[in-house]
Amino acid sequence: MSAPFKIGIAGLGTVGASIIQILQKHGAAINARAERPVEIVAVSARSKNKKRDVDVSAYEWVDDAVALASRTDIDCVIEVMGGEEGAALALVRTALENGKHVITANKAMLAHHGYELAQLAEEKNLALSYEAAVAGGIPVIRAIREGLSPNSIQAVHGILNGTCNYILTQMRESGRDFNDVLKEAQAKGYAEADPTFDIDGIDAAHKLSLLVALSFGVVPDFDSLAVSGIRAITAEDIKAAQDFGYRIKLLGSARRLPDGTIAQSMGPALVKIGSPMASVEDVFNAVMVEGDFVGTVMLEGRGAGGGPTATSIVADLTDLARGEFRPIFGIPAKKLPHGIKAGAEKVVNSYYLRLSVKDQPGVIADITGLLRDQDISIEAMSQPGAAAGQPAAIMLITHAVSKAAIDKALAAIKGLPSLTTAPVSMRIEAV
Amino acid sequence: MSAPFKIGIAGLGTVGASIIQILQKHGAAINARAERPVEIVAVSARSKNKKRDVDVSAYEWVDDAVALASRTDIDCVIEVMGGEEGAALALVRTALENGKHVITANKAMLAHHGYELAQLAEEKNLALSYEAAVAGGIPVIRAIREGLSPNSIQAVHGILNGTCNYILTQMRESGRDFNDVLKEAQAKGYAEADPTFDIDGIDAAHKLSLLVALSFGVVPDFDSLAVSGIRAITAEDIKAAQDFGYRIKLLGSARRLPDGTIAQSMGPALVKIGSPMASVEDVFNAVMVEGDFVGTVMLEGRGAGGGPTATSIVADLTDLARGEFRPIFGIPAKKLPHGIKAGAEKVVNSYYLRLSVKDQPGVIADITGLLRDQDISIEAMSQPGAAAGQPAAIMLITHAVSKAAIDKALAAIKGLPSLTTAPVSMRIEAV
Repeated sequence: MSAPFKIGIAGLGTVGASIIQILQKHGAAINARAERPVEIVAVSARSKNKKRDVDVSAYEWVDDAVALASRTDIDCVIEVMGGEEGAALALVRTALENGKHVITANKAMLAHHGYELAQLAEEKNLALSYEAAVAGGIPVIRAIREGLSPNSIQAVHGILNGTCNYILTQMRESGRDFNDVLKEAQAKGYAEADPTFDIDGIDAAHKLSLLVALSFGVVPDFDSLAVSGIRAITAEDIKAAQDFGYRIKLLGSARRLPDGTIAQSMGPALVKIGSPMASVEDVFNAVMVEGDFVGTVMLEGRGAGGGPTATSIVADLTDLARGEFRPIFGIPAKKLPHGIKAGAEKVVNSYYLRLSVKDQPGVIADITGLLRDQDISIEAMSQPGAAAGQPAAIMLITHAVSKAAIDKALAAIKGLPSLTTAPVSMRIEAV
Repeated sequence: MSAPFKIGIAGLGTVGASIIQILQKHGAAINARAERPVEIVAVSARSKNKKRDVDVSAYEWVDDAVALASRTDIDCVIEVMGGEEGAALALVRTALENGKHVITANKAMLAHHGYELAQLAEEKNLALSYEAAVAGGIPVIRAIREGLSPNSIQAVHGILNGTCNYILTQMRESGRDFNDVLKEAQAKGYAEADPTFDIDGIDAAHKLSLLVALSFGVVPDFDSLAVSGIRAITAEDIKAAQDFGYRIKLLGSARRLPDGTIAQSMGPALVKIGSPMASVEDVFNAVMVEGDFVGTVMLEGRGAGGGPTATSIVADLTDLARGEFRPIFGIPAKKLPHGIKAGAEKVVNSYYLRLSVKDQPGVIADITGLLRDQDISIEAMSQPGAAAGQPAAIMLITHAVSKAAIDKALAAIKGLPSLTTAPVSMRIEAV
């Protein structure tokens, strides 16, 4: 058997602890697959004396994670500290500069610095593996980069944030409002004390930007991605969507248009009840890929949590111990073109609209007139009864329309004196 | 760039033609991923002059496929002729003996001869790649062998035959009977003129035996797998299942029991409406894997057809051109233990039963008495009205019970003089 493959683990939270548990429980099987022993040399975390679910006394303790990057007895650094910059970024950069492979679960760091880090890794012929960074335990990176790579990928969609999917599922099942369900999710540990990254769609957008880079072979470009979250979704939206035959999901979607430009969006969207994406519930994640030869492939599973995330980390580790790794985004980073954003007039979807209006005659005529001005036709409309003197809600489903047209129509509708709050709009995706 | 990776393709049916189409359309991208040119040197098929969708004039024509195995200018043979033995097996054996890598989509051959071929390939340090042999375009082999490999896999389930899934979906949607829908499927090209392999569950069982070997790390053992197909399913079964809250799927299931034995079954099964497997419809396939750390992961997509199958072939080809391949069943074949079949008293499921009986008093008491004798309790029962003088059908859902007990009860029920035909039973799976 070959020389051991030696690793250092930075971060001993749920994921770090699960990595150690997997290696302790299944070490022999993993070594057999790797065809060499995989050996934890050193570990690092914020607090040495914190009580943990795993025994780390057999491994050398390092107070400063970045120091792992300079050790001559480590082949690979596993970064599971998290954080877009700070110690995580310093560790990964230094490790690559010092000739160490890196495995990371850090989507925020990769969304912002992945392009730079990929070039650095590839210059040095090192791995920067990140199966764990997108959709946790679902092997979606290798599915796209390897299994489906013979195809030209036309579209990719993902339910990529378990917290949001849990909240939306609970809202639908219980009829309760967003804030109520969020509080419960926080109490259960399914949402963070500061839930901004999750519920505003940022975490899911980090992951989508990596999927887009990988699927279309372009430089990751988080900043040009329009992101919205689920805060504005009300119980009445969920109910209206249901009545129209849809469920609401926080869904990332990207499509390469015939002119080569890329249309992408991260935000709440309506998907048909009975469709594969609609049946992805609770904390589950899913990714759907459309290829020109394979058709549609969907992968579903747990997108977060120690066990699932650590499974992907150790899968990358096994590949790497075998000497197998690929260019970070499928083709070498220095050859990646920059994607070109699709023009708003070319991005076409149906939309769900909710308009809160004063309960007075003529309002519907005003709204439908402004929609007609942009050639937007209405597929379905409902107006649940409102208490006398209260604002009424009008819900609409449009036929397919360009983003340019719907944006113009919404701007015009916003100017109507009968509107009581800004219009709410969500795209409809056939997934 | 390195020397070209040279291939010969045996078989130019739908799959062979699609492989060539993918290489012609996406050759530059595939070469970039392979980091060397992939080059078709020679092709072979039964008839040289048959009209085909692809132009093969640029490749050398070989009349006898087995001759591809002896050429010094070929690194890898792609076998997409099919057939459990005959020319396909001769080609693959000779290719491996002559030091050539093999990629195949041939589940029948692998289910029967995979263990022998795997040992031969591994002795010679050659690949025997077969992503395309199970679930077509869904990258399920690499998901299990690589992405989920850090886990101990506890169970694997699969909808593995598109023809059966299409027929069952159509039966449910139209209320028509099996023979009627089969004829239509044959007319549409979704079922073969001789549909035995598909509808009797043999094709799906070939695939399940490979998934079991891979998931549990045991010698493939097709012969010990109990297989039944979908011929006996009637429109009234579909309707009764629906009324009880289930759909009927041709489902392969295997589970490692706490005592290390393996319970496995390929046959029609009831799955809860709304569950992930129930939503896999028409010609789609799906595989669900349960790991000890990752939880449940499901992959869904097209399990047959030229484009999907060729996608998996070319994915294997790209890996191989990079020099990346794994032991055929995850760990070297010579180290694979033989799986031990679970005892019937330890295999536990709920069951659906349909009993056709003479319409006379006391029949239900007889049946429920024989079930009670085996400690089988009934969760639900229905008895659709029968025309006077006609046999009546009684449908039952049992609580969880061992296979030993249900087999005994069914044998006893079969002996009742009031039974008009043999009892029909299907397991229920919570997937």
